[in-house]
Formats: sequence, C-alpha cells, structure tokens
Amino acid sequence: MDVALLDALARELGPGFRTDPEALGGAATDDSGIAAAPEAVFFPRNADEISRLLQLADRHGFAVTPRGAGTGLCAGSVATAGGVVVATTAMDRILAIDTANLIAVVEPGVITKTLRDAAAETGLFYPPDPASLATSTMGGNAATNAGGPACVKYGVTRDYVLGATCVLPDGEILETGVATRKGVVGYDLSGLLIGSEGTLGVITELTVKLIPHPREVRAVAALFADARAAVTTVSAIMTSGITPSAVEFMDRACLGLVEELLPLALPDGEPTLLLLEADGDPDEAARDIARIAAICRDAGALALMPADDAARREKLWDIRRQTSTRIHESAPVYLSDDTVVPIARIPELVARLPGLGQRFGMTVYAFGHAGDGNIHVNVTGEDGSRERGLTLLRELVAIVLELGGTMSGEHGIGLAKKPFLDMELSPRSIALQKSIKRLFDPRGVMNPGKIFP
Amino acid sequence: MDVALLDALARELGPGFRTDPEALGGAATDDSGIAAAPEAVFFPRNADEISRLLQLADRHGFAVTPRGAGTGLCAGSVATAGGVVVATTAMDRILAIDTANLIAVVEPGVITKTLRDAAAETGLFYPPDPASLATSTMGGNAATNAGGPACVKYGVTRDYVLGATCVLPDGEILETGVATRKGVVGYDLSGLLIGSEGTLGVITELTVKLIPHPREVRAVAALFADARAAVTTVSAIMTSGITPSAVEFMDRACLGLVEELLPLALPDGEPTLLLLEADGDPDEAARDIARIAAICRDAGALALMPADDAARREKLWDIRRQTSTRIHESAPVYLSDDTVVPIARIPELVARLPGLGQRFGMTVYAFGHAGDGNIHVNVTGEDGSRERGLTLLRELVAIVLELGGTMSGEHGIGLAKKPFLDMELSPRSIALQKSIKRLFDPRGVMNPGKIFP
Repeated sequence: MDVALLDALARELGPGFRTDPEALGGAATDDSGIAAAPEAVFFPRNADEISRLLQLADRHGFAVTPRGAGTGLCAGSVATAGGVVVATTAMDRILAIDTANLIAVVEPGVITKTLRDAAAETGLFYPPDPASLATSTMGGNAATNAGGPACVKYGVTRDYVLGATCVLPDGEILETGVATRKGVVGYDLSGLLIGSEGTLGVITELTVKLIPHPREVRAVAALFADARAAVTTVSAIMTSGITPSAVEFMDRACLGLVEELLPLALPDGEPTLLLLEADGDPDEAARDIARIAAICRDAGALALMPADDAARREKLWDIRRQTSTRIHESAPVYLSDDTVVPIARIPELVARLPGLGQRFGMTVYAFGHAGDGNIHVNVTGEDGSRERGLTLLRELVAIVLELGGTMSGEHGIGLAKKPFLDMELSPRSIALQKSIKRLFDPRGVMNPGKIFP
Repeated sequence: MDVALLDALARELGPGFRTDPEALGGAATDDSGIAAAPEAVFFPRNADEISRLLQLADRHGFAVTPRGAGTGLCAGSVATAGGVVVATTAMDRILAIDTANLIAVVEPGVITKTLRDAAAETGLFYPPDPASLATSTMGGNAATNAGGPACVKYGVTRDYVLGATCVLPDGEILETGVATRKGVVGYDLSGLLIGSEGTLGVITELTVKLIPHPREVRAVAALFADARAAVTTVSAIMTSGITPSAVEFMDRACLGLVEELLPLALPDGEPTLLLLEADGDPDEAARDIARIAAICRDAGALALMPADDAARREKLWDIRRQTSTRIHESAPVYLSDDTVVPIARIPELVARLPGLGQRFGMTVYAFGHAGDGNIHVNVTGEDGSRERGLTLLRELVAIVLELGGTMSGEHGIGLAKKPFLDMELSPRSIALQKSIKRLFDPRGVMNPGKIFP
C-alpha cells in the first residue's frame, strides 16, 4: 500500500484508521509468537464502517485481516500479507441479554468474560470458556470456534451461535442464521463462518444461546500413578451417568513445573493429575463430585484433593493455569499444539511424547481437556530450536492422525498448522474448501494466506 | 430416462436397482403428502455402490434424490424431477458404539430409535428425538438437522454429528469432520451437509457424540387459562436454574381433539397445556419436576397432572402424540408448518391463529416445543382447500418473521416451504447458498428443485 492510498483511506475512514507505530505494533502478533506488522489498523465502530473498508479493499486489492484481542495461538489474526488489520475491540456492546428468550446479542469486541458475567447476573450461562476468556473477544471466539474446559459438558462456541451478521469481502452485509433458539432454513452459513478464522468475512454481530446457570460448582483433583490410570478413570467417570463440567489433565512434565503449588510430593514414575469439576444444584454438584472422587479412589488414585469452596477450587485452577504460563516462560522457544485423540488413546499419545522430545532435544508437555480427548501438547527448546520444533510437531500430527485423532480441537489452523493441513484433509476436501473461500472472496482480500496451503 | 438407460443401470447396479411398481410406489411420497414417483429406486449396500450410481448420473444427467424412511414433512425426499431415488434403508448397521470414547458410528439407514436403544444399553444417550424416531433414519435426521422435544435441553442433530462420510454428486467419496469429540480443521463441511436436505451429497456414514444417559425422567402436565399464562410460565421455568428435558405446548384447538384422553374437563376460554419433563439422577429429576410444578402452581396453573412413573408419563405423551395423528385424520386437507418465534412472543403468534383460520375458512392448530419457541402450526380444511391453505401459510410466515422468528425450526424447506424462502433470506444469502450448491453439484443431479426458488 503506498502513502497516497493510506492517506486516502485515512480521509475516508476517519480517526479509527491508524498508521502510527503504536497501533501497528499492537496488532503485529498474537499468542503464537508469529509476528508481522500490518500497514494500517482500523478500529471500526459499526458494520457500515467495515463495509466501507472492504469496498475500498475490493477496489484497491489490499489485504484485510480481522482481529479480536489477538489471543489466538495459530497466528490467524497476524497480517502476514500486510494491508489493514480490522480490530473489532471498539465494537464492544452487549446489545441484549434477553432473559425471556434465553439469548444474547453482542458486538464482536465484547470480551467473553464480560458476556459470561452479564449473563450470570440474570441467572443465565454462556458456557464456552477458552483459557483466554478474560481477554479474548466473542468475535475471535466465533472465528476460531473456541472451546475450553467446560466444553466437555456444554459444547463449543459453534453450539451456542444461533445467528450472525458479517460483512462479506465485497462489503455487503450478510445476516445468517436466526434470532431464535432453533432454525433450519437453507444451508448453515453461520456454521460455515464459525471456525473460518476470518477468511470469509468480518463478524459484526452474534446472537448466542444462553442456558440456565448452574448454581454450584465443586471440584476435586486426583493424582494417578500414570497417564493410563488417569485416562481409564476418565472413561469410567464419563460412562457412570455423570457429566463432569471439567476433566482437565496434566502430565508429569507439567506437574514438575508447578510442584511447589501441589499439596503433596510427586512420587517417582509418571504421576498424572486430573482436575475434575461437577456443577448443578448444590446437592447435585456435591453428590456428583463425591461420586467422581469415589470412582477415582476405586481406580487407584494415589491422592485426592477435594475443593469444596471457591477459594480451594481457585487454588486447583491456579495450578492448571500456572502450568501454561510456566511452560511459556521456561525456554526461549515455545510451540503449542492442540491435538485431539479418542479419549481411550490419550495414554498412547502421552507415552510417545518423551521419546519424541528426546529425539529432537526438546521438552514436551501435555495438558488439556481429557474428557474431550483434547490434549494441548507444548514444546519448548533452546534458542535456535524452532525449526526442529516444527519438525517435531509434524511428527506429532502424524502420530495423532495414526491414533484416529485431529490436529486441532479448538485453536484452529491459521498459519501455524497450515503446513500440516494436507496430512489430515483429503485433496478433495481442501479443494472444496478453497472453492468456498473463492466464492466468498473472489479477489482474495480477506485474511489471505491462512488455513490453506 | 429411457428404457435403454434404465436397463443399463439395472445391469450395472444389480438387484438393488428396482423399477417395479412396488418399489416406485414405496418411494413416491413422504409425510408431506406431496407425491411424485421416481423412475427407479436404488437400495445400495455401501458407499461404493452410491458412488457408482452418481458417476452414472453425472455421465447421463439424471436426477438422484436421497431418501431415508420418508418421514419428512416438506417433500425433501420426493423425486419431483424424476430420476432415481437412492434409499439408504438397507445400509442400517451400527458400526460402533464406543463407550470409552463416547461416540457412535452408524450407516445412514439406522433407525434413530435403534441407535438410541443401543446406546442406552451401554449407559449412553443419543438425545435428538424427532417425533418420527421409531421409523426415521439417522441419515434423514442428519439431512434435515432433525430436532424434537429433548432439544430444549440437549440441542439438535447438528450438535451431535462429529463427522460424516458422503458421496459427492460426481461420485467421489468425501470425509468431513472428525472421529473425536472435538475438531476445528478448516471449514465445517459436516455442518454444511447437516440440514442440506440431500442437495449436496449422499450421507453414507455418521460419527455422532454420545453423552451419559440420564437415569430417571419425571413429567408433569399443567393446564393454564390461556397461552399467555402458559408461556410466561415457560420463561419462569427456563430462568429458574432448571433445564427441563421437554417443554411441550398444546393450544385449545389441539386439546379439543383429545379431550377424552385428558383427566379433566376443559374450561371455557383458551385453555393451554404444557407437558414438562425433567431428567437426571432420580433425586434430581424428582426435585426438578417438583420445582417445575411449583412454578406452574405459582403462575396460576388451573390443574397439575404429575406423572411419577413410566406408565403415567406414557399416558401424557400419548395425549401429545394423538394430537398430531388426530389433526392429520380430522380433515382431507392437511398442511403442516414448523415456525419458531422468540419464546416470549409465542402468545402473540397463538393469538393470531384463530383469526387467520376464520379468514381462510380453515382450522389452525398449534403445538410443539415451547422451550425452543418452536411451534408446529397445522392447518386443516375441506376438500379443495389446499390452495387456500398455502396462502394461509404464506401469511403465517409473514407473521412469524414480523415476530422475529423463522419459518422452520426442524423440518427444513424441501419443496413445501421453497415458495416462502425469499421472505426470510436476503437475495445475497440465497445467491451464496445457490453458489455453494453449484460448487458441490455443477451438473445439478442431486435432489434438484429443492430448497431454492
């Protein structure tokens, strides 16, 4: 983009269109660590302003990359093709929390936690809870079909989006889906937008389903001798008639980083922790967590750490959260993966990780949502080990596919996993998806270079 | 299709390819009453046979219409363009019920209830429960994104389909989605297939999510003075922290047809019945249904009919089921609609129905899933009133849209609602969807003439 074009855009789009270093730097990366500064950042106040930007992009052929809070882990919002980042953070109004109809209507820049809190005040619950929920936006959650610990019971973002408004790459505003709790009229264009990582349009409004808020949450952590014992327990819990509201998993490597936060010493071997929650009515949550604890005990848990109040529960979750942070801080090179395997095959996956790490001279950590089979594998290494790490990740994807899994449960593809896409999807599937992309975006202005090789 | 082509297909495809009157008659209609006999019916045993049929269709340009059990209400599986119906009823194997991973893999001809029963035997639950579940197929349920009473708590078919195999219109076999409980790799092609009413491909396998089976179900029916009192109660229940597992609604006209099944006399005015269920652990179900009953009482219910055991519950559901049957049998002309409005606006919708019926000289019934706002409006009339009835339905769709609703919650568009599609969807939305259709099916062989005007 030349200076004349940038000037023309600034005149046309007003003060929300910025080219100052602060704006460019602020939009240059996400939590993947992949960085590329855009040539401009636009902070629109409404869909019409985005439409105007996209009409200009359509005419002048510059790239437009949608961005929420930049908490993605696959560089989906990083403008590697230059052009303009459209950051929806200023479109942050909750337009409705309709308690009679159990829906909410939000602009894309609403922070996920803000919606969850506002819904909770009315007795309603918006369940999707990505780890980033205190900072990530609803638009970003929708673009990546975000999940989190609660998804084992409540499903992912797609299960809650009833309708959307988006600006198409040529600037036209499209409404998809419904404003009611159900609807099957034509093809599911909302579903196509959700998880499309900003490659088909810019989401400007979302109508989401709310459900009654559980009144109580109870938690217990259980330590097992190894991953196999832990995962056998997960299957036993999931088929016992109880649906836990979180089934988090942490392997030996993760536990080693947070040992001083644990209320016990780690035994030798491959100790593995499960963090389990049950929610519902107070007596229901108490009864379910007691049953979950009993199943853990029967399955040979080495130790049980119940958390009957919010403070103790917070302590357990702090262990889980600190793990991510400490992995990230433990070494200069950090790569994150987001594998899913059939639940029963988690032990096979976990068993192969130390060997994989050794072979590449890197450290491999596994934690995540065991009730969904969704294990986040993180890889760290010394300076200069990034390329090696990427080769390791490629081997990991091969292992995951061999185990009947998928390379991404909730982070998406973006740039980070694009080189692996054809390992999982058939040529026809990729060709069909690329044709859909061309249908929405014949000039290729929307988030070019993402997802597809 | 000429005789030579039909003979060639019979030779190529074997005894599953039939042109006898019994086969043609058996595939000529569905529960919409719209009829059109195909020129042949093919009963494939596997995806490869469907692929062969579609390669021949691609070459010779004949229409192929996928069909499950033919229980649809919008003629989606009626071969109005002639050609070959591909009936998947012989592909009826449950390939896996994987209790460790909480998924099932089925062929498309598996009866929904067969899967539900098989899952229940292992302690697992496949929730979607269209009224036709004892006869309808999983493939048909997926093609229409079927719902039912349980969807108010558990969601619709799309929420359970993790992955699919389908044969594309040119005969290539495509796998979509994942075999795990989660996955976001590229665009949601599974979601696009679900609800596409057989216009994009023939589904040959489905991987679905299972959840823990609730141990107990309890029900209560409550009679209210009018629709407004009933619906206010629905909102009160839904925001009380309880998620009922069914919230069924029957208006005065429906109750009039089943009066002798009711354990009480109907008062004057517009008495309205709610049939409510709660499920979960025995004590949880009992407690929730007691609370639901208390909310009904506080909201001024005229009468409460609890059903604490399976026999009494069956009696209540029989009232609900008999309603549909008796409406259907009450007059020679029968039209069914499947509107959804915001829950709070159900009373406005219901209030406008008698006037609408009077104006067109027809009888209008309203019943359905009030917790989702999904009200089935049925219209009956004398011989020769079908055209009038269709005009009535058009006005009904206008009212529903005015109330912020949608014309279909779970039945789809098919042929029956195709004339109304452009009342709800924008020209751009329809154009985009038609382009997607062309992308999958450039020669227009798959279920031509459905959904889009």
